[in-house]
Amino acid sequence: MNDLRITSVHNPRVREAAGLRDRKQRKRTGCCLIDGVRELTRALEAQILPIEVFFCSDMLSGADASALRGQLRETQTPTVEVTEQVFAKLAYGERADGVVAVARMPSALLADLELPHGGLVAVVEGLEKPGNLGAILRSADGAGVSAVLVADPNTDLFNPNTIRASVGTIFSVCVATSTAAEIKSWLVAREFQIIAARVDAKFDYFVADYKQATAIVLGSEAEGLSEVWRTAEVTPVRLPMLGISDSLNVSAAAAILFYEARRQRILSAP
Amino acid sequence: MNDLRITSVHNPRVREAAGLRDRKQRKRTGCCLIDGVRELTRALEAQILPIEVFFCSDMLSGADASALRGQLRETQTPTVEVTEQVFAKLAYGERADGVVAVARMPSALLADLELPHGGLVAVVEGLEKPGNLGAILRSADGAGVSAVLVADPNTDLFNPNTIRASVGTIFSVCVATSTAAEIKSWLVAREFQIIAARVDAKFDYFVADYKQATAIVLGSEAEGLSEVWRTAEVTPVRLPMLGISDSLNVSAAAAILFYEARRQRILSAP
Repeated sequence: MNDLRITSVHNPRVREAAGLRDRKQRKRTGCCLIDGVRELTRALEAQILPIEVFFCSDMLSGADASALRGQLRETQTPTVEVTEQVFAKLAYGERADGVVAVARMPSALLADLELPHGGLVAVVEGLEKPGNLGAILRSADGAGVSAVLVADPNTDLFNPNTIRASVGTIFSVCVATSTAAEIKSWLVAREFQIIAARVDAKFDYFVADYKQATAIVLGSEAEGLSEVWRTAEVTPVRLPMLGISDSLNVSAAAAILFYEARRQRILSAP
Repeated sequence: MNDLRITSVHNPRVREAAGLRDRKQRKRTGCCLIDGVRELTRALEAQILPIEVFFCSDMLSGADASALRGQLRETQTPTVEVTEQVFAKLAYGERADGVVAVARMPSALLADLELPHGGLVAVVEGLEKPGNLGAILRSADGAGVSAVLVADPNTDLFNPNTIRASVGTIFSVCVATSTAAEIKSWLVAREFQIIAARVDAKFDYFVADYKQATAIVLGSEAEGLSEVWRTAEVTPVRLPMLGISDSLNVSAAAAILFYEARRQRILSAP
């Protein structure tokens, strides 16, 4: 039951949707694109209702895709059937699997966050690559990190690369953006211990006790963390580096720290 | 002291080098491309001597680049100065920083491997993305993993994306390719315990003791591990998944397991 079939790449609806690959258009419209069956399924689970969904039925397969179509029918989401050529204009990269949705970007304000007692949160600052943020969100989801705070209000959170690398977990993990200073104040006011990964730290990361309310702070590989995170409230920890490289990929560092916190928490659970 | 200056994108030397972006050409010639100052510096540290190095001086900057040029002069490596236009033809993606080298691919045979007593090794099987293998190599280097065994003799190890994501650690970590069955026999013969990450495992990864000689086995996200790793010699472990996703990115899983092994080894060191 598709509402519409589009066969021309010049169709204004297609052009407008394809325009959302561009950051400026996302900012102007408040909308983003969600590529992929798994990603869109997870967005729906997180109560994100798409504005419209483009399908290319020839490219779709599997039970997950059928379930997704059923869900969209139930929520009466407008769907559009497009040709492969039109889909190629809309879709992102090689991993396109026959579905692209247009959705309103959920707003993400620090003030709106509600966290469980003794929570575990992550702070990321100055990440250059959307793929790294996406990978960090996916590990945060897995490790049960309650929120990922992005210390740059201008971050293009719903970049298609971020959504894809997060495999849709960007819609399930709480994400909020703010300035580094505001995030730090927010954490301090809520009595979070703040643990920052730094290559020049004196202590290994596993010496810290992550069982109390903890924020894990990660910076860019190139620039490191800003001065905001070099104060007495912040405990620096290092990842032992035994090879020739002086640092890990930031998403690898994040996974290690998130899971060390989870390991300690599981082992101490009554 | 450059031997040559090339200004034409049609120059046969440039065309031949650019051809090495293609897997078939790498296989035919036994050569690969190394992009980037850091990557090439690490290749040189690992005694990889390039056949020739293309520089675009206008794009190069920094002390590392100067040090690299000095090293190449010392080893009398032929260098070629090229224009930005020629460099664009040779170089890989957005991160190009003014240097691309052609080098012979080091051979990587299981039989040649020599490992320290009580070693820690990784096995990877069926990885779809070169970037994931590269990220795994970088984490392996950091965690002091002695070797990464790639369970597919047809793997295109020296794909430019792998080299880049490894930030050159592909040249410092021992890497060998073979079949899954041969790798397992090799490990069993050397009395390695074999620990495989599986989503359906009964025990959490941190329950295992990684202080003895250990091989950590990781499979593709889509396909999981082959039947070779579903025998009595192999201990399955799982990463706790607390969110909506049923698995982590394979390079995140690798980082967590490598560093859990390293954590246990550091804490038990005399």
